[in-house]
Amino acid sequence: MGWMNDETGLDKTPANYVPLTPLSHLARAAKVFADREALVYGEMRLTYRQYHARVSQLASALVQAGVTPGDVVATILPNVPAQAEAHFGVPACGAVLNTINIRLDVDTIAYILDHGEAKVVLCDSQFLPVAMQAIDLMEGEAPLIVEVPDPQAGVPEIGEQIDYETFLAAGDPTFAWVMPLDEWESLALNYTSGTTGRPKGVVYHHRGAYLMTMGTPVTWRMTLYPVFLAIVPLFHCNGWNHTWMMPLLGGTVVCCRDVAAAAIYDAIADEGVTHFGGAPIVLNLLVNAKDDERRAFDHTVEVFTAGAPPAPATLDAIGKLGFNVQQVYGLTETYGHVTECLWNADWDALPQDEQAAIKARQGVAFPQMEDITVLSDTMEQVPMDGATQGEIVIRGNSVMKGYLKNPEATAKAFKGGYFHSEDLAIQHPDGSMQIADRAKDIIISGGENISSVEVEGALMGHPDVMLCAVVAMPDDKWGEVPCAFVELKEGRTGDEAALIAHCRDRLAGFKCPKKVVFGELPKTSTGKIQKFELRKQLT
Amino acid sequence: MGWMNDETGLDKTPANYVPLTPLSHLARAAKVFADREALVYGEMRLTYRQYHARVSQLASALVQAGVTPGDVVATILPNVPAQAEAHFGVPACGAVLNTINIRLDVDTIAYILDHGEAKVVLCDSQFLPVAMQAIDLMEGEAPLIVEVPDPQAGVPEIGEQIDYETFLAAGDPTFAWVMPLDEWESLALNYTSGTTGRPKGVVYHHRGAYLMTMGTPVTWRMTLYPVFLAIVPLFHCNGWNHTWMMPLLGGTVVCCRDVAAAAIYDAIADEGVTHFGGAPIVLNLLVNAKDDERRAFDHTVEVFTAGAPPAPATLDAIGKLGFNVQQVYGLTETYGHVTECLWNADWDALPQDEQAAIKARQGVAFPQMEDITVLSDTMEQVPMDGATQGEIVIRGNSVMKGYLKNPEATAKAFKGGYFHSEDLAIQHPDGSMQIADRAKDIIISGGENISSVEVEGALMGHPDVMLCAVVAMPDDKWGEVPCAFVELKEGRTGDEAALIAHCRDRLAGFKCPKKVVFGELPKTSTGKIQKFELRKQLT
Ligand SMILES: Nc1ncnc2c1ncn2[C@@H]1O[C@H](COP(=O)(O)OP(=O)(O)OP(=O)(O)O)[C@@H](O)[C@H]1O
Ligand SMILES: Nc1ncnc2c1ncn2[C@@H]1O[C@H](COP(=O)(O)OP(=O)(O)OP(=O)(O)O)[C@@H](O)[C@H]1O
Ligand SMILES: [Mg+2]
Ligand SMILES: [Mg+2]
Repeated sequence: MGWMNDETGLDKTPANYVPLTPLSHLARAAKVFADREALVYGEMRLTYRQYHARVSQLASALVQAGVTPGDVVATILPNVPAQAEAHFGVPACGAVLNTINIRLDVDTIAYILDHGEAKVVLCDSQFLPVAMQAIDLMEGEAPLIVEVPDPQAGVPEIGEQIDYETFLAAGDPTFAWVMPLDEWESLALNYTSGTTGRPKGVVYHHRGAYLMTMGTPVTWRMTLYPVFLAIVPLFHCNGWNHTWMMPLLGGTVVCCRDVAAAAIYDAIADEGVTHFGGAPIVLNLLVNAKDDERRAFDHTVEVFTAGAPPAPATLDAIGKLGFNVQQVYGLTETYGHVTECLWNADWDALPQDEQAAIKARQGVAFPQMEDITVLSDTMEQVPMDGATQGEIVIRGNSVMKGYLKNPEATAKAFKGGYFHSEDLAIQHPDGSMQIADRAKDIIISGGENISSVEVEGALMGHPDVMLCAVVAMPDDKWGEVPCAFVELKEGRTGDEAALIAHCRDRLAGFKCPKKVVFGELPKTSTGKIQKFELRKQLT
Repeated sequence: MGWMNDETGLDKTPANYVPLTPLSHLARAAKVFADREALVYGEMRLTYRQYHARVSQLASALVQAGVTPGDVVATILPNVPAQAEAHFGVPACGAVLNTINIRLDVDTIAYILDHGEAKVVLCDSQFLPVAMQAIDLMEGEAPLIVEVPDPQAGVPEIGEQIDYETFLAAGDPTFAWVMPLDEWESLALNYTSGTTGRPKGVVYHHRGAYLMTMGTPVTWRMTLYPVFLAIVPLFHCNGWNHTWMMPLLGGTVVCCRDVAAAAIYDAIADEGVTHFGGAPIVLNLLVNAKDDERRAFDHTVEVFTAGAPPAPATLDAIGKLGFNVQQVYGLTETYGHVTECLWNADWDALPQDEQAAIKARQGVAFPQMEDITVLSDTMEQVPMDGATQGEIVIRGNSVMKGYLKNPEATAKAFKGGYFHSEDLAIQHPDGSMQIADRAKDIIISGGENISSVEVEGALMGHPDVMLCAVVAMPDDKWGEVPCAFVELKEGRTGDEAALIAHCRDRLAGFKCPKKVVFGELPKTSTGKIQKFELRKQLT
């Protein structure tokens, strides 16, 4: 289209065209940040020079093990250094990284290993027995297993497989990386959380991850040398791509194997953590921490929260503890976060609870995204009136290549030139989006839509409630009515009538739960409540 | 290469692939930063909403004037709002922006207009007479002229051409932008400074400019909402791409028509300018400002300097005035800066003059660049010993498409997979580069290389010297010897012997100038000394 009259000699050459890939960040960091701390886990501390060398060894060892470009290498690892190393070492030999959720059942792991066709699996000793059972269940060829023990965390080596350090030691620390020839080549394979059913295999390309790492520092107001605590599992959207971003900034990744309030407060106080991301459930942990789990710190910690709608009450409480929380929103399909609740300085003057209500919005498009908005069923822009619901749709370079071996689902997801999130939202007059519900979770009562998120927000404001989920319960008269499932704070006893009355003071009558069930809630390993499990209990 | 076994349905679609272009930043800013201040010039203040509307009008008006995608639209403008608007409005109709240096002579402007085949020229009233003469001289078809008066600066409309506001008013503020279909499409056409001879037409693509805008905030440690003073002419590498970057950050561009110390201090004090870039000559202006030109300010101003090697004495002096200066280096061929003198916190403890000496290095690759290093004649890495000279070579996505209609020069510049800068440098053990000289400016005396930059650095330390340049003077015995040309500070008289003695205290004898000539130095409009003019005087 826009070509000049004469473009002779203006083609791509190796001098002026380099496929975008997060690998470039680590290659550069090894030169320009060589002696800075890159990766920390308890006793283990790696500089960028060392990190780069170990990543090169891993890539080289994988090649020696027969891995060729386009092959899949899986991991079943918590946030330990090997998981970060795999984020660079696997693509550095041209392979595709498939980080598998450590808390999945045998059956699902077998399904993923078969579906993804992994050639090698790096597996933490704690999860090795489950992985072995899954491999027994597989239909396809069994992958090579490399055991990753973690003695420092009390997880010793089992010893029947080759162990990670031995495997690495055979690799060449000066191995020349296999860089992508095309930035559309696959970088990672991530199965969705399974909140709504069987996980789908989401494929990322190098380009999308690279651009995510370039956009995120702007949103997170990051300058050089952040200290980042890896709380979000790296197997969940690759930890929102933050591990790939850190070498761009010369930052330090602090690994966090077990997500507990004490460990987080310790990392902030002892390692000077400046940034972390976490699901709202992590914020809850910090708010409800016991006194002896807390530590004092004198800097503001910048927190991204996403994965589920954070309740305004949670945002209000954590804002007082030295954390500046910014809500972001995204999906496995979008490499993690692609919208941000962009703050407006005019709001600084509002009372804390009104600020928290605004922080409960999912906001506007990330810097690297082209267009994110709310459309009607017929793909028309909804009025930005803070009331009309539609679907959040997403266009931009941090959208997946598609679902592996599922062209129908891919085509459906990309219908009309946008990725369809299946999240229902309204749009405020300033364009900022706010999720009402997942399409599957909306409750339709007597023809009226009820946002489960809104009812949950009301319940979370009650002092007895630790966590809750509201789902549709079949009803002869109304079709559906809301039913609440509630996890109580320690030492509280459930009072159904009191909770319903609490809602009545805050919501229209038809939105109030007709029933409250107390007990622990079923969660995915990414901290999301599995509403489909709760609905099963009601039918 | 790295494709998976089965990639059915994983192709590019409008949902997951958007050509990279800085246009996307302004489109997003118009939504998410709608009411923030985007562009300021004296009385004129535009929000992002207004800026976007005017840019759309310009694009629409250009289409009405017959401009089609791939056509060239030129500007002959100082840093006034129309120049910033052209940076978005011209590409928003698919055209290529050719910002012409306002200080060029009639002959060179005619050459550029013919060579670039501009269809329209936006021209400041002050430069209109020269532009008209140039158009008379042209061989090809004359472009349409749009006159841009600047009454606020005492530059009234001449009135024989259509004026900018009238032209704009005919455009549609809701015009749908023509976005690139391929990110390799041309965005801008920039002629080199002409420091070493006839300027060459450097072509930029949308991808390169986009990636420059993503890498720069990291190097410049910018977060949201900077206030940027446009001192570097937008016709010089498009002001190092900063105008394209600002909407990414919701920042404000403050236009600066005339670069003078008082205007800069005023903008800092009155507009709260946080960032600007400038050639070393601008730093000199600020250091040598008169008392009544200075203004007090209480924040640190972040300054990029590039274009020529800044003397350590200049860096030392300005560091004490509230400016944090970071040297960057690049060429028209690389969209502006592509290396940065990355600071190491260990150096904070060094004495100010040693810090200034380190700040005089050109440093390491920018975040978005793949590899920048120093190679020998045979394209081998030079030893990083702080002594061995070689050529700076550059590989990465912010390297030009090539020289317009000059495939031979393009192929030569890209030989061996790197862009060849023709700048000679050494590399320190930490990989940081330091320019010794332009290949053409190095002085070879009795077989020894003398870096003119080193001799100039010594001279700049003398209190009488305002500016200087050292070039080769033919010599019967030694082949060449250094000759210094010196501009004195106000009220000083030149003392040749004293200056030579000053050098003798600091440099090896053979490096000292054998002759010193006092007087004003010939400069390009980007503040560079034209050494080829000085050499002419010596032959
Ligand atoms: N900030 C947020 N606020 C509200 N909901 C969010 C937020 N961030 C993410 N979500 C929810 O999480 C979903 C994305 O989660 P993810 O891709 O991890 O898997 P999942 O959708 O939970 O699982 P599956 O697709 O397998 O059912 C979004 O579609 C949205 O419903
Ligand atoms: N930080 C810096 N230190 C030293 N020299 C620099 C620096 N930045 C840029 N330069 C010099 O400026 C050159 C790039 O300038 P530019 O592309 O504007 O035109 P030019 O090279 O001066 O003109 P022409 O190519 O027409 O002779 C570099 O090749 C280098 O010599
Ligand atoms: Mg989902
Ligand atoms: Mg040049």
